[in-house]
Amino acid sequence: MKAGTSKPRKSRKKSTSRGERAAPIRPLSVGLLPNLLGYNVRRAHMALWRDFNRTVGDGIVRPGLFSLMVLMDENPGVAQIELATQLAIDKATVVGLIRRLLRQGWIETRRSSVDRRRQELFLTATGRQELGVLRREMLEHEARFTNLFTRQELASFFEYLRRIQI
Amino acid sequence: MKAGTSKPRKSRKKSTSRGERAAPIRPLSVGLLPNLLGYNVRRAHMALWRDFNRTVGDGIVRPGLFSLMVLMDENPGVAQIELATQLAIDKATVVGLIRRLLRQGWIETRRSSVDRRRQELFLTATGRQELGVLRREMLEHEARFTNLFTRQELASFFEYLRRIQI
Repeated sequence: MKAGTSKPRKSRKKSTSRGERAAPIRPLSVGLLPNLLGYNVRRAHMALWRDFNRTVGDGIVRPGLFSLMVLMDENPGVAQIELATQLAIDKATVVGLIRRLLRQGWIETRRSSVDRRRQELFLTATGRQELGVLRREMLEHEARFTNLFTRQELASFFEYLRRIQI
Repeated sequence: MKAGTSKPRKSRKKSTSRGERAAPIRPLSVGLLPNLLGYNVRRAHMALWRDFNRTVGDGIVRPGLFSLMVLMDENPGVAQIELATQLAIDKATVVGLIRRLLRQGWIETRRSSVDRRRQELFLTATGRQELGVLRREMLEHEARFTNLFTRQELASFFEYLRRIQI
């Protein structure tokens, strides 16, 4: 990336140092995007996602996995289909997450004594311990965002977010 | 769940047809999740995402692809790195999206006459036409959600969402 190679840059006053991008990042015109609710929710979601992955579960546990563990902790013996329904995610995704949790040894499955076809899911002792750590990290992560609001603002914000969960 | 317990289904009045789930979906206890900002933003994001994919771009165009096309329309000759920076997504993702747009014939690349190393991106005529359709579908999709709010509520909602885009 030396200056002085192809024709035009020979005459440029401000030569760039080796390895530096020649083209500066210019601020883009963003059109209608900032006026779209979808765009703003997406950006907010990405900001939370990035901070979560930086600070919770050593970058291994994703938000969806955390939610799943909370639900298993709250509902011992829950079935896969119930988790998928509650979290509004497809069954294939839940199956993948559950496989990961089994591999980690954080959950175990038992066959229901009432309905043999039903697999019941339980956190293991290790899983419960891990969830305790995750919960603490999660609350610190949350605070970095909720601290930006007054209590009244936050209540409205939650209400608005729930209104669009249709 | 019917009373009458194990080997239960033989004597059940309301027999389930083969392949149907025996266990009904019970409402789960969700613990701390509804009190988490992250969880609510995620749920809102998923609701928007599902509606977008059902109603915009025939389920082929994803929100990220739409944003990319808007930026290329607003900034003819924009570079990949500028798009990645603006949308706060990694370069690999942008590269994948651009490849799709090239395959569709909706964009084209030209080499910059000023800096030969720079690939400039432009919407094609087809791409601009497609974006017109997408924009209309997008605004209908948006209205389904924004109609749930007063103008004042919506202004606050946008302000809150922007506040956490840190």
